[in-house]
Amino acid sequence: MLKKTLKINGINRIVLAASDASLADVLREQLGLTGTKVGCGEGQCGACNVILDGKLVRSCVTKMAKVADGASITTIEGIGTPENLHPLQLAWTVHGGAQCGFCSPGFIVSSKALLDETPKPTREDVRDWFQVHRNACRCTGYHQLVDAVMDAGKVVRGEMSADDLAYKLPEDGQIWGDKYPRPSAVAKVTGTLDYGADLGIKLPSDMLHLALVQADVSHANILKIDTGEAEKMPGVVKVVTHKDIKGKNRITGLITFPTNLGDGWDRPILCDQKVFQYGDAIAIVCARTEKEAEAAAEKVKVDLEPLPAYMSAPAAMAEDAMEIHPGTPNIYFTQKIAKGEDTAPVFDKAAAVVEDDFYVGRQPHMPMEPDVGFAFLNEENKLYIHSKSIGLHLHAAMIAPGLGVELENLVMVQNPAGGTFGYKFSPTMEALVGAACLATGQPVFLRYNYHQQMTYTGKRSPFFFKVRMAADQEGKLLGMETDWSVDHGPYSEFGDLLTLRGAQFAGAGYHIPNIRGEGRTVCTNHAWGSAFRAYGSPQSEFSSEVLMDELAEKLKMDPLELRYKNVYREGSTTPSGQKPEVYSLPEMIDILRPKYEAALEKAKAASTDAIKRGVGVSVGVYGCGLDGPDASEVEVGLNPDDTVTVYACWQDHGQGADMGCLGTAHEALRPLGLSPDRIRLVLNDTALAPNSGPSGGSRSQVMTGQAIRVGCEALLTAMRKDDGTYRTCEEMVSEGHPVKYKGQWTAPATNCDENAQGNPFSVYMYGVFMSEVAVEAATGKTTVEKMTLVADIGKVNNRLVTDGQLYGGIAQGIGLALTEDFEDIKKHSTLIGAGFPYAKQIPDDIELIYVESPRPDGPFGAAGVGELPLTSPHAAIINAIYNACGVRITRLPALPEKVLAGLKK
Amino acid sequence: MLKKTLKINGINRIVLAASDASLADVLREQLGLTGTKVGCGEGQCGACNVILDGKLVRSCVTKMAKVADGASITTIEGIGTPENLHPLQLAWTVHGGAQCGFCSPGFIVSSKALLDETPKPTREDVRDWFQVHRNACRCTGYHQLVDAVMDAGKVVRGEMSADDLAYKLPEDGQIWGDKYPRPSAVAKVTGTLDYGADLGIKLPSDMLHLALVQADVSHANILKIDTGEAEKMPGVVKVVTHKDIKGKNRITGLITFPTNLGDGWDRPILCDQKVFQYGDAIAIVCARTEKEAEAAAEKVKVDLEPLPAYMSAPAAMAEDAMEIHPGTPNIYFTQKIAKGEDTAPVFDKAAAVVEDDFYVGRQPHMPMEPDVGFAFLNEENKLYIHSKSIGLHLHAAMIAPGLGVELENLVMVQNPAGGTFGYKFSPTMEALVGAACLATGQPVFLRYNYHQQMTYTGKRSPFFFKVRMAADQEGKLLGMETDWSVDHGPYSEFGDLLTLRGAQFAGAGYHIPNIRGEGRTVCTNHAWGSAFRAYGSPQSEFSSEVLMDELAEKLKMDPLELRYKNVYREGSTTPSGQKPEVYSLPEMIDILRPKYEAALEKAKAASTDAIKRGVGVSVGVYGCGLDGPDASEVEVGLNPDDTVTVYACWQDHGQGADMGCLGTAHEALRPLGLSPDRIRLVLNDTALAPNSGPSGGSRSQVMTGQAIRVGCEALLTAMRKDDGTYRTCEEMVSEGHPVKYKGQWTAPATNCDENAQGNPFSVYMYGVFMSEVAVEAATGKTTVEKMTLVADIGKVNNRLVTDGQLYGGIAQGIGLALTEDFEDIKKHSTLIGAGFPYAKQIPDDIELIYVESPRPDGPFGAAGVGELPLTSPHAAIINAIYNACGVRITRLPALPEKVLAGLKK
Repeated sequence: MLKKTLKINGINRIVLAASDASLADVLREQLGLTGTKVGCGEGQCGACNVILDGKLVRSCVTKMAKVADGASITTIEGIGTPENLHPLQLAWTVHGGAQCGFCSPGFIVSSKALLDETPKPTREDVRDWFQVHRNACRCTGYHQLVDAVMDAGKVVRGEMSADDLAYKLPEDGQIWGDKYPRPSAVAKVTGTLDYGADLGIKLPSDMLHLALVQADVSHANILKIDTGEAEKMPGVVKVVTHKDIKGKNRITGLITFPTNLGDGWDRPILCDQKVFQYGDAIAIVCARTEKEAEAAAEKVKVDLEPLPAYMSAPAAMAEDAMEIHPGTPNIYFTQKIAKGEDTAPVFDKAAAVVEDDFYVGRQPHMPMEPDVGFAFLNEENKLYIHSKSIGLHLHAAMIAPGLGVELENLVMVQNPAGGTFGYKFSPTMEALVGAACLATGQPVFLRYNYHQQMTYTGKRSPFFFKVRMAADQEGKLLGMETDWSVDHGPYSEFGDLLTLRGAQFAGAGYHIPNIRGEGRTVCTNHAWGSAFRAYGSPQSEFSSEVLMDELAEKLKMDPLELRYKNVYREGSTTPSGQKPEVYSLPEMIDILRPKYEAALEKAKAASTDAIKRGVGVSVGVYGCGLDGPDASEVEVGLNPDDTVTVYACWQDHGQGADMGCLGTAHEALRPLGLSPDRIRLVLNDTALAPNSGPSGGSRSQVMTGQAIRVGCEALLTAMRKDDGTYRTCEEMVSEGHPVKYKGQWTAPATNCDENAQGNPFSVYMYGVFMSEVAVEAATGKTTVEKMTLVADIGKVNNRLVTDGQLYGGIAQGIGLALTEDFEDIKKHSTLIGAGFPYAKQIPDDIELIYVESPRPDGPFGAAGVGELPLTSPHAAIINAIYNACGVRITRLPALPEKVLAGLKK
Repeated sequence: MLKKTLKINGINRIVLAASDASLADVLREQLGLTGTKVGCGEGQCGACNVILDGKLVRSCVTKMAKVADGASITTIEGIGTPENLHPLQLAWTVHGGAQCGFCSPGFIVSSKALLDETPKPTREDVRDWFQVHRNACRCTGYHQLVDAVMDAGKVVRGEMSADDLAYKLPEDGQIWGDKYPRPSAVAKVTGTLDYGADLGIKLPSDMLHLALVQADVSHANILKIDTGEAEKMPGVVKVVTHKDIKGKNRITGLITFPTNLGDGWDRPILCDQKVFQYGDAIAIVCARTEKEAEAAAEKVKVDLEPLPAYMSAPAAMAEDAMEIHPGTPNIYFTQKIAKGEDTAPVFDKAAAVVEDDFYVGRQPHMPMEPDVGFAFLNEENKLYIHSKSIGLHLHAAMIAPGLGVELENLVMVQNPAGGTFGYKFSPTMEALVGAACLATGQPVFLRYNYHQQMTYTGKRSPFFFKVRMAADQEGKLLGMETDWSVDHGPYSEFGDLLTLRGAQFAGAGYHIPNIRGEGRTVCTNHAWGSAFRAYGSPQSEFSSEVLMDELAEKLKMDPLELRYKNVYREGSTTPSGQKPEVYSLPEMIDILRPKYEAALEKAKAASTDAIKRGVGVSVGVYGCGLDGPDASEVEVGLNPDDTVTVYACWQDHGQGADMGCLGTAHEALRPLGLSPDRIRLVLNDTALAPNSGPSGGSRSQVMTGQAIRVGCEALLTAMRKDDGTYRTCEEMVSEGHPVKYKGQWTAPATNCDENAQGNPFSVYMYGVFMSEVAVEAATGKTTVEKMTLVADIGKVNNRLVTDGQLYGGIAQGIGLALTEDFEDIKKHSTLIGAGFPYAKQIPDDIELIYVESPRPDGPFGAAGVGELPLTSPHAAIINAIYNACGVRITRLPALPEKVLAGLKK
C-alpha cells in the first residue's frame, strides 16, 4: 500500500493503493470513477486514457508506483458533466460520435489533451493523434470522431457557440430522418453510463467474483478435475464444475434445421467429457475478490488426454479425422441450392466461364468492451442474468434446460454493451454466471480479460468457397455453380442457418437464372462460429464479387458496367428465387458511375512505380430478418403524466437501439405531438418487456420497428376521440380503456426449401461500394485512400445512426480485407496481433450516398442498416488492389506479404 | 437483490441492490456517490439528504424497496461540480458555509429542494425548512448557511449574477483579514472531499472491515473471552483480543504531571483485566465485510463479573468506593491555587460575599461525522494510521508503546475530518485500527455508528464547582475561594491539565488579588473526559460568571458595570498571576454598553406574563496554547515552478486549518507577490510534515502561525538578492542555496507552579457575551432570541473563518446552556436524545463585533479564535434567564422542567 495525495479533476484527494495497482483500477474500482473504461487492459485501445500532469496516458498500464505524489489527473468526469458538457462532449453527441460509447471517454480525454496542446488541429492532426495514442474505435470508423473534434475546437476557440453546435428540433417537430442525438449519448460522452464491468463494481459487496478454469489445448478428453487445493485458497467460496450443474449442462442451438445430423445439444456449459476448443471452460472459481478467484483457478488441477486438433474445415473433413462430437459426423449439415435449369449445359454453352477458390477467414469481432456478466437470485428466487446478450429471450431458451431452471424463473437483462457486432448472439457468459449463481446462491460477477475475449468468444466462420460463373458475350450472367465449406468450430449453434446464407448471398444482387451448388457445415476445433455483422454475406459475396471482376476481365468489360448489366431489375429474382422488393441498384450505379470514372482517371494519374493506385467496386446485398416469417412483439403504454412508454427487447450492440425505438415511436405517435423526451423506453429486460427477438440480421428496425408502429397505432386508435383529438391518460382510465397495447409484427416471408428457394426476407438492403487504394510496390502494403458507398436502406430513421453504421461497417470491411484474422490463437489474441484497424488505417475520405427507396414492409419505409456496409466492401478493396497492381488476392486478409508475393510473380 | 432503473443525476442507471439496503448505502458504497454523507445513520442529521422524485428524503432511512423503479434521484453530485458550481455551492463557499463540510452536501441538497419549492424564501422560511428537515450543523450555528441560501436564491432568480457573488481578490492582493474562501471549500460543497468513511469505500478490496466487541456494562472484571465461534463465522479473518497485541496494550497519557498519583498507563487498547466504562473495546473482529464483522462480533462470548459503577465524581469519591484502577486512588490528582494573600481574612472583612455551587455536565461533542479510521502497512512495513486525529505526533507517542511499534515505524495521517471539537485529542480509533492491522498484516477499516460515537468517545468532563467571591462596597473584587472536582471518567489522559484549567479560568477576566482553592481529578466509570472546545473554561467561567451576577445583585449593581469595574486593566493580573498581554476588556464593554442598555429596555417592554424576557452578560477568557512553553515546527519550501509549499501538521477539526496556513503564509510571503493559489499545503501526515503540535487550545494560529511566519521569513531571507528582488528556485539551486527552511516557534510562556501561578499562555482571547432570552412561563422553555459577542481575538487572519468559529462556538454554548447532556447513556446516545441544537434553537440574530488588539506574540498580531465563543456564552444565557424570570440555574443544562420548577418556587 502507498498513500498519495492526487489532484483528481481539480480536487486534492487522498489515495491509498497498492503500488502495483494500475491507475485505471484505482480510479475505477477504488474511487468509483468508472467513466474511465478498461478495454484491452494492455495499452492497445485507449479506452482508459486520462491526463496525468498534462500528458495523455493509458491508465491501464500506468502503475500507481509511477504516479507522483501530488500529481494532477483529469478523467472524463473532470472534463464535463451531463449538465455542463464540454464542447468535445457536445460535439460527440451531435456528430453521433458515441455508438456503443465504450471508447468515448478515452477518445474525449485524448481529444482534450490534443486541443490543450494543439488548439487548432487539422483533420489529419486529429487522426495522427488518435493513431499515436492508440485510440481504438470499433464502431465509428473514426470519421464522426474527427468531425466532432474539429467542431469542438471551433467552440473552444470561440469561432462557434455551443448553441450553434447543439442539436435543434426541427420546427415541425419531426425527428424521423433527422439527426436527433441518441438518448444514451450524454451518458456515454460523460462516462456516466454503466457498462457491465462498471455495474460489477457497483454491485452489493456480497457479490462473488468468478474466474474460469479453461482448457489450454484445442481438443482433449477430460480424465480428472481436482478442485481440492483450490477450494482451500483464501476467499474461495466454491469451485463449480459440471457436477454442480443441475440441468443438462448444455447450451442448445435451438433452431437446428431438421436435416442437421446433430441435435444441437453439443455445447457444454462446463466441459464434462471433453474439451472441444482452446479456452473451453472446465470449472468456475467463486471467490471474494477477482484476484483470489484467479489465484485459486491456478490451483484447479485438470488431467487432460490430448486428442488431434482439427483447426480448419479441410482438416476436419479428412477421411481419417475422428468425430469431434462422437456420434455426429464432422460434416453435420449440408445445404443445396438449385435455381432454374441444371447448370452443366449452361456452362458448356456459355461464352465466358470463370471460376476461382476463395477464403474469408476467422474475423474477430474485437469490441472495445470485453465480455462481462453477472447473475443473482431476486427475492422470488428468480435467476437474473445480466450480460451483453443481444438475444435475451432466445438465450433464456438456449440456456435454461442446461442450467436446470424453469424459463419462468429466468430473467435476462442486457447491460449497456460496449460493442458486440454479433458475437453476443451466442450465450456463453450467460450460462457461466447462471451456473455459478445457482451453485452458490450468491450474486456472481465475471469479466473476461482481452485474451479471453479473443480466444473464448465466437468468431466469424471461415468459408472455403469455390464459385463458377457463366455469361454470354455481352456479359449477361447465365449461371452459377458454388461449393462451400463452413468451418463452424466445435459448436453447432446456427451453423446450418449460416450455411444457408452461402446459398442466399453468393451472387446476390444479380439476376442469375440458373444456380447449382452445395455447402456444408463442418465441425472443427478452432474458435466456434458465432454471428458477426453481415453473417455469411462477407464470405459469400466476397467470392462472387471478386469473381465478377474476373469475369469482367475475361469479357474485357468494365467491372462496374458488367454489374450494371446484371443487377436486379423488374423480372429479376434473387439466388433464392425471390422477387426483390425494390429495384434500386441500377439507379445506385448510375449515381456512382461519374465518381467511378473520375476515380479511375485519378488513380491512373497518381500511380507511380513505387505506389500503384487502383479502383474497385462491389455490390452488396443483405436481408433484414432471421429468415422466414420472423416476428417481433412490443408493448406501448400511456402513462399517468401522458408520456408514452415503449416496452421492447431491442437489444443494443452499440448500433443505437434506443434511437431506433425512439425515432420509430416518435414518428408513429406524431398525431399526439409529443416531444421526444416525452417518450420513455423500457428496454431489454425479459421481466419488463416482451420478446422482440434477437438483435441480429438487421432485423430490429424492420421487425421491432413495425411492432412499435403497430403498438403505437393501437394506442392512438384507443385514444382518438370522435372529434379527432386524443384522450388523456386520465380520460382513458375513467372511460375504462386499457392504457397498454401490444404491437406485434410477423414478416410476410417464407422459409427456404431444401434447394434454398423461398422468400426468406421481406426487406433487403442494397449497396454499391467503391474503393480507391494505393499499393506500395516495395512492401505490398495496401492503403485504402477512399471508400464510397451508395446505399439503399430505405427511409432513414436517424441519420446519425445510419451514418455511424455505414462508416463503421466499412471500417470493419477494411480490416477484413487487409489485416484482421484470428487464425493463430497465440499471435492473434490481442487487438494489435489480430490486425485491429486504428484511425490511420481507415481513410478520412468516406463518402456515403443514400438512395431512400421506401420499403413496403418496413416501418415508414425503413429497412435495416447495420449489416449492409460489411457485405462486400472488402471485395471492392481486393478488386481495387488488382486494378492497381494486377495482384488478385483470394484468401483474406490481403497482408502485405501476400500482395508482395503476387507482385513478385 | 432487486434490479431497478433509476434516473440518478439525470442519467438512467441500472441499480442492483438488496431490498433492505438503504438508499444512502447504495449511493455511497455501490455507486461511489460519496458526496452523500452518512452522519447519524438514523435520520436525525440530514447529511444524507437527496431529492427523490422531487421530494427531499433522508437516504439513510430510505430502504431500496421503497424507491420506485424509474424514480429520479438528485444527489450533491448532480447539483453542481467543482468546475460548474450551483449558486448554492458558490454561496456556500463565499459565506464560509462549509467548515468541517460534512453536513454541506446535505444542506445544499436540502436548500435546492427548498428553492425548487419556494423560489423566494425569507430567512425564517430557510430556518423552518432546515428545522423540519432536520438539517443539523455543529460547526456554523446556521447563520452563514442562511446567508448562503438567501444569496443563492438571488442568483437563481436572476437578481444577482454569480460573478457578483463570487469572491474577488483585493486589488492589493492581500488576503490577510479578508474573506478568501478556504482552499477546501469547493471540494466540500461539491461532495468531492473524501472523509474517512469515503476513503474507506475507496480503499483496495483486500481491506478488512472491523467490528468491535464492546462492554455493555460500566465496570466489571473480565473472566473469559471466547472467540471460538466468532472465528468460524463467514468472512472472518481474525478476532483480535489483548493477547494479540504485541506492546503494552495501553494508551499512555504522556504528559501526566509529576504529582499525579497515576502513571498514565491506565487505559487499555483492548480490555484485558477489567472493563472501565460502557463501550470499552474487548475484541475486534476482522472480516471481509462490515456485516460479516458485525455478525461475528455478536458471537464473541465475554464473561464479565459486574462491579459497582461510579457514575459521577462524588460517587467515586465516597469513602467506601473501590479503586477503579487498583493501586491508584480514585482522586488521583490535586491542584491548588494560591494567589496573593490568604483569603480567609479577606472574606471576613469584605463588604459583600457570595458563594454558590455549580455543575457543568458531560457535554457531548456531537460532530456530524462519527469516528472513523483505517490502518495499513506500507511497503517498508511502516504502520500507517489514518484517522480524525487532531494531534498526530502526540498520538503516535501515546499509542506506539501500547501497540509495540517503534515510533519511526508509525506514520499518522489525518483524514479530512467532519468535526471533532476536541474529542479527537484522545486516540482510541487510532490504537484499535493499529492493533487490528498489526495482528492481521492487512489494511483494516473501522467506522463507528452514532451510538458508538456517543458512547465510546470522550466527553466534556463535568466539574462540580464551588466558588466564593468577596468584594468591597463598590464592587471591587477582593478575593475568591474555589473548590472543584473534575469527573474525568476512567482514563487519566490530560485529566491533571484539565484540573489546572479550573485554577486558571475561574474568575478569569478580572483582577482578583487574592485567591485560594483546590481542585481534584476524579476517576469514575462514566465516559472518559476528553478535550472539548474551550477545555475547562466553560465549567470554570460558568461558575465565576454566574456568581458575578449574584454578587451584582447583592451589591445592587448592574452586572455589566460590576464586570466593567473589575476587568483587566494596566496593573491587573490573571488568576495565575500573569500580566495580560492586552487590556481590551474595558473598551469591549464600552462597545457593548449601549446595546446592553437597549436590550434591557426592549426585554422589559416585550415581557408579558406568558413570556418573560431578559438580558444576561458574561466575560470569557481563554489562553492560546498547550500551557507553558508550547512549541511548533513547520517547513517552507520553494518549488521548481516557484510556488511555495508549507509543510505542517495543523490538524483540522473543521475550523479551517488550510485557510489558517494559507492566510498566514500568504501574509508572510507578501514580498514575493504570490497569488494564493501559488502557495501549496502539505498537511497532516507525520511522514511528510514536521511536528506542529496538536490542534487544541486555540494554539494553532498562534504557535503554528508563528512557525509558518518564521519559516517563510527564512525562505525570503535566503531568496532576497542584494537589489531587493528575489531569486527564483532555479537561481537558488544554481547558487547552492537550500530551498526548504524550517520554521520553529516556542511560546514565551512558563509553566504554572504548584499554586497554579505562572505565565502559562503568551496570548489570550477575550470576549464579552450578551444574551437576550425569552422564557415561557407555562413550560419553563427558554429561547435565545439574540446573542452578541464583542471579541478580541487579535488581528483577524480570515474573516469567514473567524465568523464561523464565533457563530459556531456560540451555538454550542446555547446547547450547553439549554439542552445538551450525556449523562444517561441510553437516553442521551442519539443527537436528538442528547439535545443537539437544530436551526431554530439557534437565533438568526447573532451579532459579532471585533476588537482587533494586535498580539505581540501572535503572528501578524493574531490570537487564536476557536475556543473563545464557548468560554462563557452559557453563563450569559443563564444570567439572562435570571434577569427574565428570577430563576437561577446552577446545574446545566437549563431544561424547561428545571426552569419551571424554579418559577414555581
